[in-house]
This record gives sequence, structure tokens and C-alpha cells, in this order.
Amino acid sequence: MDVRFAVNVAPKDGILDPQGRAVEGSLGHLGIEGVSGVRIGRRAELTVDAPDEAAARAVVERLAGELLSNPLIEVYAIEPLGATSSATTAGAGVGEG
Amino acid sequence: MDVRFAVNVAPKDGILDPQGRAVEGSLGHLGIEGVSGVRIGRRAELTVDAPDEAAARAVVERLAGELLSNPLIEVYAIEPLGATSSATTAGAGVGEG
Repeated sequence: MDVRFAVNVAPKDGILDPQGRAVEGSLGHLGIEGVSGVRIGRRAELTVDAPDEAAARAVVERLAGELLSNPLIEVYAIEPLGATSSATTAGAGVGEG
Repeated sequence: MDVRFAVNVAPKDGILDPQGRAVEGSLGHLGIEGVSGVRIGRRAELTVDAPDEAAARAVVERLAGELLSNPLIEVYAIEPLGATSSATTAGAGVGEG
């Protein structure tokens, strides 16, 4: 079975996040107020072909810990996106154009 | 009220994703099989202080389209994380260590 997952990787609390600081520094130029606590991380989406959902999740866990994140400075969260065919699930339509 | 959001940014379908290709190319070295369709994007988390949820969402929409994504080559999806105090919501515990 094909299962699609997202892996959300974020800087650990207390770890410097220069991209987040850069975004916060740009808010004034855009005239946007009231935004705080910006943290910038990565999001990977991938499809795993495995005998069952538990096996698929084990593959994603390994991938997330060994390849997609640096456990010293980052945390990850695995988000099941369901059994799909292919294609990107994130952002379908919402931010188009 | 403080509302926390995540903004997931992914490369549009059909747009080259060199990071995703790099991850797929590394799978063999790790002995991981059955993984395909890897797409690598960004995930921003931020807190918005606004009078109500609709106003908060409007701020995030603007930020996502003007600062966090490049609408020519990327799509974004906004994910409400609920009314929070502060701190990172993603990865709480799951990928720790």
C-alpha cells in the first residue's frame, strides 16, 4: 500500500532561528503588525510503499531522524496524509496563484 | 487574542525540486526502500495577535503570499494551530532526541 506522509522539522526551542528573525525584521516594511514567535523549519512530503501502515511509519521515522532532521538542533513531527496515489497534498488550491 | 498558525510552503507540481531529488538519491545509501515522490518545502509557524480569528487569518494570508512563499513557483497552505501562549507546536515530543 502507498501511504503519504509529511515530516515537519522545526528548530528546537532555544536554538537560534535566523530565518525566523529575518521574517520578523521584514514585517515592518510590509506594514504588518501583531506577528511574533516566527519559527522557520522544513516540511517534507513523501510516499512510502509498505505492507501496512505501521511498516510505512517505521520507514518515515527512520528517514526523519537520519536524513530529514538534525536531532541535535531540530525536532520533527510526522503527519500522516493518508493513502494517496501521488502528487502534492499541501497547498492544494489554497495559495494557488 | 493570540492565534498560532503554520504556513506550509511546497514547490508547485511540475517545478523542479532539487532538495527532494537529493533526498531520493540518498535513500539507497541508507538502505531505505519504497520511498518516492519526495517534495521538500518550508514550514513557518507564527503567532498573530488580532481582534478575532478572521482578522488573524487575513494577516497570515498576506504574510504567506508576500513574504513566506514565491507564488510563481510555490503553493502554500495555512494550518490553524489554535489559540496558544507561545512556543513551538510542531514536533512536541515526537522527534525529540
